[in-house]
Amino acid sequence: MAGNQFGKLFSVTTFGESHGAAIGGVIDGCPAGISLDLSAIQQDLDRRKPGQSAIVTQRKEPDEVTFYSGLFEGKTTGTPIGFAIHNTNQKSHDYSHIKDSYRPSHADYVYDQKYGFRDYRGGGRSSARETASRVVAGAIAKQFLAGIQFHAFVSAVGDIKLEQPYTELDFSAIEKNPVRCPDPKKAEEMEAYIRQIRKEGDTVGGIITCVIQNVPVGLGEPAFDKLHAELGKAMLSINAVKGFEYGSGFAGAQMKGSAHNDPFNADGSTQSNRSGGIQGGISNGMDIYFNVAFKPVATVMQEQETINNKGEKVTMQGKGRHDPCVVPRAVPIVEAMAALVIADYELMRRTNKI
Amino acid sequence: MAGNQFGKLFSVTTFGESHGAAIGGVIDGCPAGISLDLSAIQQDLDRRKPGQSAIVTQRKEPDEVTFYSGLFEGKTTGTPIGFAIHNTNQKSHDYSHIKDSYRPSHADYVYDQKYGFRDYRGGGRSSARETASRVVAGAIAKQFLAGIQFHAFVSAVGDIKLEQPYTELDFSAIEKNPVRCPDPKKAEEMEAYIRQIRKEGDTVGGIITCVIQNVPVGLGEPAFDKLHAELGKAMLSINAVKGFEYGSGFAGAQMKGSAHNDPFNADGSTQSNRSGGIQGGISNGMDIYFNVAFKPVATVMQEQETINNKGEKVTMQGKGRHDPCVVPRAVPIVEAMAALVIADYELMRRTNKI
Amino acid sequence: MAGNQFGKLFSVTTFGESHGAAIGGVIDGCPAGISLDLSAIQQDLDRRKPGQSAIVTQRKEPDEVTFYSGLFEGKTTGTPIGFAIHNTNQKSHDYSHIKDSYRPSHADYVYDQKYGFRDYRGGGRSSARETASRVVAGAIAKQFLAGIQFHAFVSAVGDIKLEQPYTELDFSAIEKNPVRCPDPKKAEEMEAYIRQIRKEGDTVGGIITCVIQNVPVGLGEPAFDKLHAELGKAMLSINAVKGFEYGSGFAGAQMKGSAHNDPFNADGSTQSNRSGGIQGGISNGMDIYFNVAFKPVATVMQEQETINNKGEKVTMQGKGRHDPCVVPRAVPIVEAMAALVIADYELMRRTNKI
Amino acid sequence: MAGNQFGKLFSVTTFGESHGAAIGGVIDGCPAGISLDLSAIQQDLDRRKPGQSAIVTQRKEPDEVTFYSGLFEGKTTGTPIGFAIHNTNQKSHDYSHIKDSYRPSHADYVYDQKYGFRDYRGGGRSSARETASRVVAGAIAKQFLAGIQFHAFVSAVGDIKLEQPYTELDFSAIEKNPVRCPDPKKAEEMEAYIRQIRKEGDTVGGIITCVIQNVPVGLGEPAFDKLHAELGKAMLSINAVKGFEYGSGFAGAQMKGSAHNDPFNADGSTQSNRSGGIQGGISNGMDIYFNVAFKPVATVMQEQETINNKGEKVTMQGKGRHDPCVVPRAVPIVEAMAALVIADYELMRRTNKI
Repeated sequence: MAGNQFGKLFSVTTFGESHGAAIGGVIDGCPAGISLDLSAIQQDLDRRKPGQSAIVTQRKEPDEVTFYSGLFEGKTTGTPIGFAIHNTNQKSHDYSHIKDSYRPSHADYVYDQKYGFRDYRGGGRSSARETASRVVAGAIAKQFLAGIQFHAFVSAVGDIKLEQPYTELDFSAIEKNPVRCPDPKKAEEMEAYIRQIRKEGDTVGGIITCVIQNVPVGLGEPAFDKLHAELGKAMLSINAVKGFEYGSGFAGAQMKGSAHNDPFNADGSTQSNRSGGIQGGISNGMDIYFNVAFKPVATVMQEQETINNKGEKVTMQGKGRHDPCVVPRAVPIVEAMAALVIADYELMRRTNKI
Repeated sequence: MAGNQFGKLFSVTTFGESHGAAIGGVIDGCPAGISLDLSAIQQDLDRRKPGQSAIVTQRKEPDEVTFYSGLFEGKTTGTPIGFAIHNTNQKSHDYSHIKDSYRPSHADYVYDQKYGFRDYRGGGRSSARETASRVVAGAIAKQFLAGIQFHAFVSAVGDIKLEQPYTELDFSAIEKNPVRCPDPKKAEEMEAYIRQIRKEGDTVGGIITCVIQNVPVGLGEPAFDKLHAELGKAMLSINAVKGFEYGSGFAGAQMKGSAHNDPFNADGSTQSNRSGGIQGGISNGMDIYFNVAFKPVATVMQEQETINNKGEKVTMQGKGRHDPCVVPRAVPIVEAMAALVIADYELMRRTNKI
Repeated sequence: MAGNQFGKLFSVTTFGESHGAAIGGVIDGCPAGISLDLSAIQQDLDRRKPGQSAIVTQRKEPDEVTFYSGLFEGKTTGTPIGFAIHNTNQKSHDYSHIKDSYRPSHADYVYDQKYGFRDYRGGGRSSARETASRVVAGAIAKQFLAGIQFHAFVSAVGDIKLEQPYTELDFSAIEKNPVRCPDPKKAEEMEAYIRQIRKEGDTVGGIITCVIQNVPVGLGEPAFDKLHAELGKAMLSINAVKGFEYGSGFAGAQMKGSAHNDPFNADGSTQSNRSGGIQGGISNGMDIYFNVAFKPVATVMQEQETINNKGEKVTMQGKGRHDPCVVPRAVPIVEAMAALVIADYELMRRTNKI
Repeated sequence: MAGNQFGKLFSVTTFGESHGAAIGGVIDGCPAGISLDLSAIQQDLDRRKPGQSAIVTQRKEPDEVTFYSGLFEGKTTGTPIGFAIHNTNQKSHDYSHIKDSYRPSHADYVYDQKYGFRDYRGGGRSSARETASRVVAGAIAKQFLAGIQFHAFVSAVGDIKLEQPYTELDFSAIEKNPVRCPDPKKAEEMEAYIRQIRKEGDTVGGIITCVIQNVPVGLGEPAFDKLHAELGKAMLSINAVKGFEYGSGFAGAQMKGSAHNDPFNADGSTQSNRSGGIQGGISNGMDIYFNVAFKPVATVMQEQETINNKGEKVTMQGKGRHDPCVVPRAVPIVEAMAALVIADYELMRRTNKI
């Protein structure tokens, strides 16, 4: 399997299966001299971990990270940062229902086809548990990027959505409800809806919006590695993501140029920001903002017809403790991937000029 | 500037500014033994080139590609394929209006900030002229991938959109109208709308849909390099793109899991295809389909207020011959980038198993 | 710090400082379906570990590897293989002599200059302890490459050298003496010399020769990534290595072409093998062989004048338990790096042709 | 074919076969703002070109470089620099003797095996003509690295060698004789020897030494990407190179640590320089110096027995105009590759610290 590394200069390489001994990774290229606040890293992990509220999966995974290298006397040394999150909950599960059968809209079938067999325990490598490693790396990237703020939040659950622009939201309200939606009223509606969906044994999709503030001008490489192209890849690499748009996004495709263009102020800032903080692939100093669409979790607590690895029709009943809606826990993952992209491009930016 | 290379195993590295001597590139990793049809490559270039119809820019650029290496007796040799498209139209243009001033929603300002100065002629490196090199590389990738079909088409111009699913369209109709929309009636509406937009001196955005058929099972790397993540990056790296969604896309975020899941047939194919041909980042053999949103072209033939490089307010009048709507010419670019991704992952797939 | 990853398709990313909590890494791109013999991996680690004989450092480091992922039911799954070697010997050492002072011909000074400070415990990241992670990855690469043999051995210690060509050696004798020299008589001389050097509180350099047999024709990329160029980089990346030559090597620079050329046999094999199994950067199926020169270990048990981080002259006395000669323990490291290169190029080879 | 790109941040991707239409490449990552002296680039090409003196091949190839992009008003813009060297001498050669037969110790056989067929004209991609593109890129790297000096010279031809250390040589004498040896007396001997070798219809090997001066402290990545490891790879990727050693090199393998260590001066410089300017893979500010061994050119003007592609024995007679000794023309290639490595690591160095 290729593709377990993200980033060119500030990179993370991850390993680990859902129900294996541990997940973890190696962060390479992190500059020396960052005074790391380890509790802030654990805090981001806690925002992602199962069991944190009534509307997420009730699995118990403490997700405590252990660092093996790259830190000395509280600071990054410039050497690679090895870390692991050990699985404390490796008791013998019953996997008989997925060992030989393919869960619909999961990766079971394609893994078997691609690799010849698979580690079927808990989804193996295809489980979103892998994203905990990304959160660790992203939390370190955030500390490297002190001064830049990453605000991700839930802007839609099913068809309940925020209608106001992000500029009218109070980001300090995001963490005040289990949905991570900064509009308290909508948050309540969303929460109620997720509870109902869970009762139905069903799941529902949603949208996360991310706003990055105080980004310096000049991040991004103009051709294939446009800043938004890498942000898009980063987001689309998160489990269950089906779409990405930044700035005016899909709505921009309906607009006229005369209405879409962002007029300049004298200082180079712009009066509107349909560009989403990026022009020609390069950050222009305005807020970067984008939306990430998540499909509903594929594991539903309902009977489904499916096939086994002999091509026989079988009936499958979802088991275990799963999220009825993935977006509340995905908020720190979106932030982490955004921070990894910005960190990588910040290092790249240093090589622009003589 | 980094990021002028795309692809890890089947890669293209491009060079060239809009009004420089030539654009071109190097294709590396193309397998040996492909009998290349050079006219098919030129044909894709012709689908992208200016002046091809009344609804695109009337600039004259023949865009003829010259190959310097990597071919022998009609076949690829496995060595790098160097190529160039010479600019025949390097007459002295008048750039005085953009030399010191920043066109709104263009890359002029950020280039100056990032690099200290810029080649202002025709947008320099930020011009979409660079995509002609991508079309050359993509056309070769398509020939490597004989058996896989790439069908891109215009599915929306402004708020005129195709409503039917792609399965009800006749792909053979795509090239029969200048808009490249397979629905003849909608194509006429779109064409009329683009003509009107041009008369207004304005521009409009649109959406391109791409369908890839006959993709083998097993393309894609499950973590960061999910197949759709790389497709997303590829599309977002095209000039003017603001959004990407595949399969159920943003609409999928509103759905319930019970309705979203794709039930299997006995042979591993699925009855529905909301997964968009990709599960867990790996192709499952079903059609891959996705939408790409393009913003309206920033150069409008209207007076705009803007600033110059001293931070002074100036008035700018769009000049030259520009596209009122970019999507008809972007269709072959979308196909090219899609083919480059699939070619790269096809080579990667060969390394999966012992 | 960049550069903690080796390999493009079959890669390893390592982490860890000498006296930190653990060293380890992630192996990415290992094909699925290899039945791994874990004891063979530990055996290679044991060949590298301290304390294995009287002529190496007497430190006690069991160097037991723990695998966290990528294996299921005894086979590689194609997913990344995470592993760690925990340090069992983290008792409080006395580092006062190196904390502020720079050991001559060590990396202390340049680390401080490059990173602003350093983890001085036992050499930190610059310690050769990092190579244990390489041995783990290389041992897995060897199992992927079943059928190809890697024979590394000590061919010189100081000025005691093997004079015969490798074809006259019995590789099965390599592991029968602590020096890992296949000529029993020379091995005794070398061992005696190393014992004497140790008594003097001094160290001595040496040469390792490596022979790779049964390599298929066609490994290697002809321009920058010639097979021997990557082998050279791999060897030069091992601590204390000062030189690399393959085939006729430096001696070949004195020869005439008429005497140097390797005449072909009818089957494409060659009668002589001054090419060292590689022509034009591509393996030709003959034995690949090369020499790797190691400098004497810089830590001597003698007083040395040096400077501290204030630029003051200080006297330093070597402490701890160090190798008088590094080559006996470096034999498995050379094999491991060779196996990593061959594995990477074997995967690359699969992409040559349609 | 992979591996036609060298460098991670300051990179060059090359294309072109010996007797194709053109060779050339794309330089990516060159910082913006370098005032390029184009004549200095051509001058390096002239030092490499055929026909420059009586002791090199008498082929006529003017090797004039054309730049297509990346320059504006005399300065690098930060965008990729595309360039080509057109072949003016594409007249119909007679290749019948190599079309179906394999020249001994050339790459003909392995290319056919690897790719299924080959462009046999003049060696195709395996020809050292490819190195002209490297010289172009290296000459630009040198200008980026103004302040750092690259001095390469011939230190041995056959068994005629310089005995004095490089510190006793006058680098300004290098270009004063056709051999490019800074010792005038030895240069005469070497020249006479090469003339004699040519008369014999034979060829001879040699050694190039390179000294890099005024390198800042801190270039190099400590693990796999040690500065000398990348320099070694760079040199070993040049056609005909068989060995690389830096600092004390192979001689260092015979030494004792007490004699090998470089004592510090108070300012961090060292009294001796057996480390070759690199400690732990990182430059320490002292001169970097290394030796590169070249085998004799494989094409001799004598009859040789060989085989054809049917495995039949045939007699082959060298034809055309070839170098009796490659080292005089390889001097600028060694410098170019050294400059590319240093440029890449200089950009990487900027990312070390916060």
